[in-house]
Amino acid sequence: MDAATQAATPAVSFDTSPERYRHWKLAFDGPIATLSMDVQEDAGLSPDYKLKLNSYDLGVDIELADAIQRLRFEHPEVHAVVVTSLKERIFCAGANIFMLRGSSHAWKVNFCKFTNETRLAIEDASAHSGIRFLAALNGICAGGGYELALACDEIFLVDDGNSAVSLPETPLLGVLPGTGGLTRVVDKRKVRRDLADVFGTVAEGVKGKRAVEWRLVDAVYPTSQFKDRVAARAKELAAKSDRPSGGPGITLTPLAPAVTDTSVTYSAVSIEIDRDKRVATLTVAAPEPGQPDTVDAAQALGARFWPLRAFRELDEALLRLRTHEPLIGTVVVKTRGDQEAMLAMDEWLLANQDHWLVREIIHFMKRTLKRMDLTSRSFFALIEPESCFAGTLFELALASDRSYMLDDPDRDNTIALSAMNGGPLKMSNGLTRMQTRFLAEPEQVDALLDRGQPFDPQEAMAAGLVSFAPDDIDWDDEVRLAIESRVALSPDALTGMEANLRFAGPETMETKIFGRLTAWQNWIFIRPNAVGAKGALTAYGSHSRPEFDFNRV
Amino acid sequence: MDAATQAATPAVSFDTSPERYRHWKLAFDGPIATLSMDVQEDAGLSPDYKLKLNSYDLGVDIELADAIQRLRFEHPEVHAVVVTSLKERIFCAGANIFMLRGSSHAWKVNFCKFTNETRLAIEDASAHSGIRFLAALNGICAGGGYELALACDEIFLVDDGNSAVSLPETPLLGVLPGTGGLTRVVDKRKVRRDLADVFGTVAEGVKGKRAVEWRLVDAVYPTSQFKDRVAARAKELAAKSDRPSGGPGITLTPLAPAVTDTSVTYSAVSIEIDRDKRVATLTVAAPEPGQPDTVDAAQALGARFWPLRAFRELDEALLRLRTHEPLIGTVVVKTRGDQEAMLAMDEWLLANQDHWLVREIIHFMKRTLKRMDLTSRSFFALIEPESCFAGTLFELALASDRSYMLDDPDRDNTIALSAMNGGPLKMSNGLTRMQTRFLAEPEQVDALLDRGQPFDPQEAMAAGLVSFAPDDIDWDDEVRLAIESRVALSPDALTGMEANLRFAGPETMETKIFGRLTAWQNWIFIRPNAVGAKGALTAYGSHSRPEFDFNRV
Repeated sequence: MDAATQAATPAVSFDTSPERYRHWKLAFDGPIATLSMDVQEDAGLSPDYKLKLNSYDLGVDIELADAIQRLRFEHPEVHAVVVTSLKERIFCAGANIFMLRGSSHAWKVNFCKFTNETRLAIEDASAHSGIRFLAALNGICAGGGYELALACDEIFLVDDGNSAVSLPETPLLGVLPGTGGLTRVVDKRKVRRDLADVFGTVAEGVKGKRAVEWRLVDAVYPTSQFKDRVAARAKELAAKSDRPSGGPGITLTPLAPAVTDTSVTYSAVSIEIDRDKRVATLTVAAPEPGQPDTVDAAQALGARFWPLRAFRELDEALLRLRTHEPLIGTVVVKTRGDQEAMLAMDEWLLANQDHWLVREIIHFMKRTLKRMDLTSRSFFALIEPESCFAGTLFELALASDRSYMLDDPDRDNTIALSAMNGGPLKMSNGLTRMQTRFLAEPEQVDALLDRGQPFDPQEAMAAGLVSFAPDDIDWDDEVRLAIESRVALSPDALTGMEANLRFAGPETMETKIFGRLTAWQNWIFIRPNAVGAKGALTAYGSHSRPEFDFNRV
Repeated sequence: MDAATQAATPAVSFDTSPERYRHWKLAFDGPIATLSMDVQEDAGLSPDYKLKLNSYDLGVDIELADAIQRLRFEHPEVHAVVVTSLKERIFCAGANIFMLRGSSHAWKVNFCKFTNETRLAIEDASAHSGIRFLAALNGICAGGGYELALACDEIFLVDDGNSAVSLPETPLLGVLPGTGGLTRVVDKRKVRRDLADVFGTVAEGVKGKRAVEWRLVDAVYPTSQFKDRVAARAKELAAKSDRPSGGPGITLTPLAPAVTDTSVTYSAVSIEIDRDKRVATLTVAAPEPGQPDTVDAAQALGARFWPLRAFRELDEALLRLRTHEPLIGTVVVKTRGDQEAMLAMDEWLLANQDHWLVREIIHFMKRTLKRMDLTSRSFFALIEPESCFAGTLFELALASDRSYMLDDPDRDNTIALSAMNGGPLKMSNGLTRMQTRFLAEPEQVDALLDRGQPFDPQEAMAAGLVSFAPDDIDWDDEVRLAIESRVALSPDALTGMEANLRFAGPETMETKIFGRLTAWQNWIFIRPNAVGAKGALTAYGSHSRPEFDFNRV
């Protein structure tokens, strides 16, 4: 077993709020918010490293993710966000190298996954919520700092003769820019590959006019003009937004689950952990009947409104499993509740999707389901009587690696689709889970969505909506054996297999980041040339130079 | 340094021909060829393993690649190929596990890359040359055996109660099916992901009717009917071909380069190796002026015709560098010769591209350039007076990570484009190298292609066609420093960086295989759960069971 895995896992909570931020400041000026990085050196998750020069660890990124989320839900009046730094002549030095060096492989991989999701959340807010992001690089911007800038719509760099953008990972550390940098440089900013090659290998980076010519930034301005130019452009960006001109937003209250050694219990979501079997059971409860009719009533419920509450809980539950339970390789997915209420909720959401808050809720549900797609655990959905795999909650079965539906002639057991399965909850590959599932028979998707009534086990099997439908005699054994076989397999092979099977169909910048880039980064993160006794990541900041095995693979 | 890298590299030649095959039999019956696997257990590349049950090593796959190539060039009358086995009740057991276990990481990776390229060459022959492939699985078909079948257009499986298709890599060996299997199952055959998940974890595989229902094979037939059904279907497939109804083809004569410890010299291609600097210089000579005017004349030249000769040499040179020179991380790319002759050749090729032989030659040039894109070495093109970076040979500069063009006012130095840069030589991503280069300014592509005259260094820089154009005073130092800096970097980080920067733009099944799938496989191939003392690949076939670190990454 990887001894470092547990030892190097600091206690970490994904629950934070602006008044508790240590590393970021949020300021508001009408439609413009300014999100400023001001990392406290001594406030890293571990005392083993200092977060110098606005370098970051997971704790810093959890605050960033929280800030992006709150801008969406709590500040509908914000139409543009300026991302900048409060440190003199430093925007951000990237992920903290001493943190990376001291972390287990699994921690590095999970850290990069979360930071990638956060950067994609910025792009999601821009694409779907009318919030534009302007990176105002008021000082040096290296590695993960530049990758954060790349996630913004536009990048302005101060032209002070010193400030540069750079991706020094390869030349200094022998690793890749692991948070989308390489992909965004050539695919989003469309930097020519030969220039990207040069940029990716010169530790000092590129500044001034050349940074613009190479498309690495959108503009450079002298220090004297920088603030005004940023402010003026932020105003222009804000003017294009379709968000409301004023509030109020809703407050994202703390989730506060009840946590024991073997369970985490939220209001609509729970996790039960069986450490001996290395299996968790994740259960999501459908909305109660009698939900609010109007958007005003839903808004009055705020964070207690079921779709937001249940998916915030699900999101945190997934992050907890990833971060705190690395030995739990298989997750049994269950639901419970009232199918009619779930389908009514879906109808309500779609009927009101033009309202800013409902739009935010739907996109958040989408992002949470993507988080599930990207979670490197095996998911098996169990569809039983009293479960509620309907509409939005049926996405949990579609997102699972397999689904088992009990076919007991004496007990009702159905699944149901809704229009929420037909578009709003797209995967990273740009398709719905239904489209991805039925790549071979695309015409099936609309036929099934149009059916308008539930599917019993036989119908669900015939339609290809579930993997297996054992009868009541076989159910217990078949499910038990499936889980026992799964947990016995190599966890690495399963991670790789699932990463390849879950994303059939088209690739997007997002799937490229999580597929190609992440997989290569994971490989490099365990190579002796990076993390061995004489590897570059190990040698960095010491007085010794790295020594490489120069064999090319 | 990876001690196993050199030790475990058997002497291997990529030069073979049917009369020397040990493992395959080629038989011809009019428009139908039958390519039968009959692996000789004792004829592996190394005596350390036996190639039982039609399992394969690189030597077996080199023969397969050769056979596919010869079918295209030597047998224009072949319109369909039946891929089958001469062994009783066994089609193919996949890559030899004892070979994999005994190989260095680099060898495993290179082996998988070559076998992937061979399978893609089968699909290329089907898509572009009118040769359809029918996999006739007359017995058990496991792992790489099934991946070979997946590369064929159709898969027939004998229904004898025993023969199954399977991908047992994950359950038995703790690795992935690394030759495109996972990708082709969900993306090419569009198997539902939950069924693919089951299929990928049951060692015994799937047979009979279920294999058809799950889309894993196209048909199953009882033993009594199998041969007739295969023959009948092969005839139908052959009938759709647009190839000529008769020969003659041309013979692919041996390349026979002059080889010393530091050089490989072919007729139009040479490699010079500087082991101290870890740099090779690859030089390609343009065609001489006065090439054949007619296709008949070209056909009479056969393998001596420049485009075929030069690219066969280049192809083998790349394979030699990959296999025999793992320490040579940087390749300087040069050309020499007559630009007019090169451009005239391009014009001739395009004017005659409807002829089957010319078509084959162009597609072979395309595949060779893809092999370069996929070679994990840094390529720097040096464009100097007397070089010939024109048309097809300019693709070598476009395929390079960077290009340097000498700007000496006293010496002529130009590059030139031709219509060959505008379509026929597409990369794995489905775009031309020009389109990939100018993703940010797609309109530039046609503007540059239409220019109709060479570019001097200043014009080439202004057009974005080269990376740098140092003057004669700076040239030596700038080029020397660029190479010295490159060879000092971590070879792993460079491999990962290049794999991410070279393939901007759309992803295809092909780029998915080499990006996502290969990168994950490389990761798993060095994880202790696979190759450690108690890993699954190590334990296979011994009496001990694997012991896993069950932490999920």
